[in-house]
Amino acid sequence: MKHGIRHLFIPGPTNVPERVRRALNVPMEDQRSPDLPALTLPLFRDLKKVFRNEDGRVFMYPSSGTGAWEAAIQNTLARGDKVLMSRFGQFSHLWVDMAIRLGLDVTAIDVEWGAGVPLDDYERVIAADKAHEIRAVFATQNETATGVASDIAGVRKLLDAHSHPAMIFVDGVSSIASIDFRQDEWGVDLAVAGSQKGFMLPAGLSFLSVSEKALAAHRDNRPKMERCYFSFADMLATNDQGYFPYTPPTQFFHGLRVALDMLFEEGLDDVFARHHRLAEGVRRGVAGMGLKLQAVAPRWHSDTVSAIRVPEGVDANAVLKIAYERYETSFGSGLAQLSGKVFRIGHLGDLNAGMCLTALSIAEMALVDAGARIDLGSGVAAAQDYYRDRSGEATGSRVAAA
Amino acid sequence: MKHGIRHLFIPGPTNVPERVRRALNVPMEDQRSPDLPALTLPLFRDLKKVFRNEDGRVFMYPSSGTGAWEAAIQNTLARGDKVLMSRFGQFSHLWVDMAIRLGLDVTAIDVEWGAGVPLDDYERVIAADKAHEIRAVFATQNETATGVASDIAGVRKLLDAHSHPAMIFVDGVSSIASIDFRQDEWGVDLAVAGSQKGFMLPAGLSFLSVSEKALAAHRDNRPKMERCYFSFADMLATNDQGYFPYTPPTQFFHGLRVALDMLFEEGLDDVFARHHRLAEGVRRGVAGMGLKLQAVAPRWHSDTVSAIRVPEGVDANAVLKIAYERYETSFGSGLAQLSGKVFRIGHLGDLNAGMCLTALSIAEMALVDAGARIDLGSGVAAAQDYYRDRSGEATGSRVAAA
Amino acid sequence: MKHGIRHLFIPGPTNVPERVRRALNVPMEDQRSPDLPALTLPLFRDLKKVFRNEDGRVFMYPSSGTGAWEAAIQNTLARGDKVLMSRFGQFSHLWVDMAIRLGLDVTAIDVEWGAGVPLDDYERVIAADKAHEIRAVFATQNETATGVASDIAGVRKLLDAHSHPAMIFVDGVSSIASIDFRQDEWGVDLAVAGSQKGFMLPAGLSFLSVSEKALAAHRDNRPKMERCYFSFADMLATNDQGYFPYTPPTQFFHGLRVALDMLFEEGLDDVFARHHRLAEGVRRGVAGMGLKLQAVAPRWHSDTVSAIRVPEGVDANAVLKIAYERYETSFGSGLAQLSGKVFRIGHLGDLNAGMCLTALSIAEMALVDAGARIDLGSGVAAAQDYYRDRSGEATGSRVAAA
Amino acid sequence: MKHGIRHLFIPGPTNVPERVRRALNVPMEDQRSPDLPALTLPLFRDLKKVFRNEDGRVFMYPSSGTGAWEAAIQNTLARGDKVLMSRFGQFSHLWVDMAIRLGLDVTAIDVEWGAGVPLDDYERVIAADKAHEIRAVFATQNETATGVASDIAGVRKLLDAHSHPAMIFVDGVSSIASIDFRQDEWGVDLAVAGSQKGFMLPAGLSFLSVSEKALAAHRDNRPKMERCYFSFADMLATNDQGYFPYTPPTQFFHGLRVALDMLFEEGLDDVFARHHRLAEGVRRGVAGMGLKLQAVAPRWHSDTVSAIRVPEGVDANAVLKIAYERYETSFGSGLAQLSGKVFRIGHLGDLNAGMCLTALSIAEMALVDAGARIDLGSGVAAAQDYYRDRSGEATGSRVAAA
Repeated sequence: MKHGIRHLFIPGPTNVPERVRRALNVPMEDQRSPDLPALTLPLFRDLKKVFRNEDGRVFMYPSSGTGAWEAAIQNTLARGDKVLMSRFGQFSHLWVDMAIRLGLDVTAIDVEWGAGVPLDDYERVIAADKAHEIRAVFATQNETATGVASDIAGVRKLLDAHSHPAMIFVDGVSSIASIDFRQDEWGVDLAVAGSQKGFMLPAGLSFLSVSEKALAAHRDNRPKMERCYFSFADMLATNDQGYFPYTPPTQFFHGLRVALDMLFEEGLDDVFARHHRLAEGVRRGVAGMGLKLQAVAPRWHSDTVSAIRVPEGVDANAVLKIAYERYETSFGSGLAQLSGKVFRIGHLGDLNAGMCLTALSIAEMALVDAGARIDLGSGVAAAQDYYRDRSGEATGSRVAAA
Repeated sequence: MKHGIRHLFIPGPTNVPERVRRALNVPMEDQRSPDLPALTLPLFRDLKKVFRNEDGRVFMYPSSGTGAWEAAIQNTLARGDKVLMSRFGQFSHLWVDMAIRLGLDVTAIDVEWGAGVPLDDYERVIAADKAHEIRAVFATQNETATGVASDIAGVRKLLDAHSHPAMIFVDGVSSIASIDFRQDEWGVDLAVAGSQKGFMLPAGLSFLSVSEKALAAHRDNRPKMERCYFSFADMLATNDQGYFPYTPPTQFFHGLRVALDMLFEEGLDDVFARHHRLAEGVRRGVAGMGLKLQAVAPRWHSDTVSAIRVPEGVDANAVLKIAYERYETSFGSGLAQLSGKVFRIGHLGDLNAGMCLTALSIAEMALVDAGARIDLGSGVAAAQDYYRDRSGEATGSRVAAA
Repeated sequence: MKHGIRHLFIPGPTNVPERVRRALNVPMEDQRSPDLPALTLPLFRDLKKVFRNEDGRVFMYPSSGTGAWEAAIQNTLARGDKVLMSRFGQFSHLWVDMAIRLGLDVTAIDVEWGAGVPLDDYERVIAADKAHEIRAVFATQNETATGVASDIAGVRKLLDAHSHPAMIFVDGVSSIASIDFRQDEWGVDLAVAGSQKGFMLPAGLSFLSVSEKALAAHRDNRPKMERCYFSFADMLATNDQGYFPYTPPTQFFHGLRVALDMLFEEGLDDVFARHHRLAEGVRRGVAGMGLKLQAVAPRWHSDTVSAIRVPEGVDANAVLKIAYERYETSFGSGLAQLSGKVFRIGHLGDLNAGMCLTALSIAEMALVDAGARIDLGSGVAAAQDYYRDRSGEATGSRVAAA
Repeated sequence: MKHGIRHLFIPGPTNVPERVRRALNVPMEDQRSPDLPALTLPLFRDLKKVFRNEDGRVFMYPSSGTGAWEAAIQNTLARGDKVLMSRFGQFSHLWVDMAIRLGLDVTAIDVEWGAGVPLDDYERVIAADKAHEIRAVFATQNETATGVASDIAGVRKLLDAHSHPAMIFVDGVSSIASIDFRQDEWGVDLAVAGSQKGFMLPAGLSFLSVSEKALAAHRDNRPKMERCYFSFADMLATNDQGYFPYTPPTQFFHGLRVALDMLFEEGLDDVFARHHRLAEGVRRGVAGMGLKLQAVAPRWHSDTVSAIRVPEGVDANAVLKIAYERYETSFGSGLAQLSGKVFRIGHLGDLNAGMCLTALSIAEMALVDAGARIDLGSGVAAAQDYYRDRSGEATGSRVAAA
């Protein structure tokens, strides 16, 4: 028998806020109803604000983020097109795998798991591509498997430095709406996000934000991959009127409306600041326990997920199993080569300091149960110390002690 | 201001039963949780019962039915493969369009909108294909645009008669779980369904039921289309353990559990009988109003949707608009060449006689408001007469009149 | 197995609108939270608008309407106090019963079930009470058992005509928020309402709207009945700060917020007009079937519920049973002396014309099944004719017929 | 802007489990429906199991627990009846207040706030009452304001020791279904509980469990207080058939069904053991911080709520305010004479160790923010140490450390 809240600290799906849950719980409606555009058109507009994409557009697919990855490729590239990618975790690995399977000619740079997009290596390849044969450069903004965030602006800079016309593809599934992202400013052409992370919705809807340049690439007369479900053209033909080429999951739109309202009510910059603060508290907690992150240096720290190395001799999978079975808590597992070596705390979406402390206090118990020599309370105390100070500053209403 | 129940009589999304709505309203959970297979594995098994597919398997995609159409093609066929199709309504039209866009060599037989799969034409083409170059024959079991149901068993018979090895693809989006379908008995290789019709769920999940023969085709060493999101292989690698190659929308699984329970509690044959009874009442109501169906003969009558011809001089779009604006009711619109000529009543899913009478009574008012010369109550009375008698028989508990 | 919408046509609990259902589905919260008054204080204010009570106040009790009946009596009257009441249906009967059991000295005038508050008899008694011993006159604005509405303004007029100081108590459980009610204008001192009728909420909360005169009576130094749970004083001591003397059901407050918003968005006068229109359609439907109402004359017609006499030789309970078992429909039963003689259609709350037509079409089938000689469709047609015309006028957007 | 879970650690309303929330979210139904008894009759039976009341019965009132207090008195006692009570916190105080206001002749023994029912004093009074004039002895099993649990069996023993026939009234609002209670074994005659505590439902329903002896007292021919809403007789006349004397809040019954299922699935004894374990962890956490409970000795420790003394010079209300505003957390406030001196952590209902650690970690931050000299993490560590060991034992599946 389990009781109480199931504590969910995975890097997505994230906890759906009550407001959003209520909004999702609507009866079905006619997807051709005259009222639908009044719901959907503002969603398209507001999604662009989240991506900071003024000139392009955002597509919504009934699919996981993987579907939006595929949509990005199918609509703008052709089999045999050269692309530059990098692998430094399970999700960047899978994206490379997809690109190969869809027939792209992939140059994939492998990086140790714990660092991110290798700007130097990218620059070397780009500099060498005098003929501009590389049509696209891919970058995973936040590698969910390792808790590593990369420098997307840096990709833009190096392309600009070499006046290289390649498009930039960004996987922002576990970053967008949680970590700063600026599509226009950074010249990102195709940015992928999913409903179940910073957007605080259930899984099942993906977002693809497309620059005007990518739309032009889609329209030009180079052949592209065959496609239908993920076709930009079919979306373009219907989205402007507020409709879809096939039956959309309208319940998600009602939830998305509220999720966007919540993001804007808080303000995107404050959303990012909150994620940073909560993440920093978790990182201090991890340090307080005497543990290390998989991210090899602070510049790679992700504000949405921390992958935590367990001590030598401890099995991270035992930690996960104990947390799940004894403490009603889901942490993220170590994927692929990290299995047994890390467990992950997702700290994104609808979250507060108290929840992060819950995660740390349960992590401590599960670690000790699994044989780690950790002082109970040590991580919690470090995080409390951080959260307490900052919270005091934030509210500006410090209560005078007697 | 609108009040009361929004009457939804479109051929999908259908009304989601309260039990299913409650089941869908769950917190997010870990898609890698050890508990997930206890939920998902029985779903896979039970979906096979609905499709009456013993030897093959069913895939669940986070997508609309259109995605499952694409999955069926990508995983078993290659560009340039010859296929036989037919067009007799908007959805069979769109499937042909997809097949062409994905690069198949399509022989598409056009049929008047109001009839269904042209078995004689199919037989002629199949008989002529002595080299067995046609790799697949496509059939839309229920054309949602015209309210026409086709004879799928007949497709099997003609292939068998000519010992033709082509696979059979069936679009059962608006029929499966509402109208009799027997994958094994009819030798259907790929059958497509969607969550938002007879499965009584919101839109966003599609089902693809695949025969062992189609799985063999997927595995054989002929090249297939590039694919990743809809890949059978990725699903096969994870589904048997109860997991998925990307984040699945677990909330749907909880809803699907209850929807399947409801289908089995009623019994599939009784589900079909109920749909037939409700549909027949609607058809009698249409006849009682003096109107005709788009289906040109009773053998094409669909038990899930009726497309109703409005009288000469009446605009079906006005009927729809009036029903929506004055009577809080969504009927299905006439699509493509039927725009303005028909309106459609969806009568599938979680439905009872009272709801069909609501549809008819509102249709009558909207028709008269739009200028039709219909006797108010005439359709309702004809349907009541049918529903009443049958219900009396069904319960066997006729109350003795004084 | 039952399928589809459970049709609910009882005079309360009524159908809870989707918006309200969503609003009710909140986590529990601290009933002493600093945020609570921001929710509750506007509710108190807005409830007063519904009662049209400017100077007095409204109490909310976690109870059924019966509790608010008791609250009204306990807080303003003492055992042995003389009151004037009338009985013309099950609910006015029960109120008299309560008054007697609580120790009042009741003069109860019996009226045939089908008429309402007997103003002539009341006037006779009041005129004779030269000593002003009668402390309160009770009136049931809408007798739910018989579908009879009474003239509350008339009670005020006769008291004024005789300068009689008695308080007026009104049972408005099945009328307030659906039928015109004007507490200040009519000089009503204590008006009782419940959540589950025109307020479109689940059962469990009652409202008692109290005039300044009744508050003064509560405060004066005549002894009153012992009370605690329903005590005005305890409410007064906490309500002004937005709190309650015991744990309130805060979930109801969130639902009430939305229900009030809906009433005000529509406009109370339009709410009343809609109820009248829907009720009149039902009445025409009843007449179209050749049946009669229990209300003996049009001036007694209730706009929230119609009690329909079944033909001689037909058992109204059989009609109810058939409607429930065969047609998934709840009608109201005949209570006490009306058992077997009437069935009732509740037509209040979140309702539209289509729903009333559903009620009539099912009533016709159930009546015929139970042996009544009714032409199927006859009632529906009469109601359609009424609803259609009025709706056309209302929208002013009659579509031109060809 | 607030984000994430609102942490609710008040001693009721408690966190409603997801299963119960879903069950509560039902459409309204006919309270006279033939299906209702199939829902309600098992509820009555199962409630008796929770109270461990075999021979008597349980009433359900749409009211707060205060209503059930009143029901207990009104139905079995008369004005002027002598009763023995005690006051040692806000709720026992209020019960005495009610008894006085309803006209009982109350002997109320005052006890310091921090201890419970004064058995010695009770015995003295009972021993002196040779004439058996005292008709009832009242005992608050769990004083929610001070976190003090009393010995109810002890009350029975002393009455038996003196062969005194007084009835025993127990306020078990914040204990029953969380702390051991045995109505038959302890000879309790009237036991009051509420939906919003151990029953894990929203506020709005109260339970009154009545012994056969109390029912006999209700039936005997001594006069009782006037009553109607809370009348046993009206309930008795309808409950046996599964119905109610006025419109019941049927949505609660669906929630109660699931709540009872959850209690029985876990097993009542395991429910009590879980509450004890969670409470003990909180108490160790409090001690770990160097703070004291309001309960003056371990024998008074309540397993559902802890009232925690703040250090000298710290304002408990500041702690509450900080927790609420900075940390999205509701703790219980100090009531009446304890205002500013204690804050309370409710640890009852649907709760697990992780949630208790959340409470402690936030309490620590709020205390330090408010000026207390507490080592951050000190309470959490003490509780973790306790929860960890016990959990290991409980599962018997200690993972071997490397």
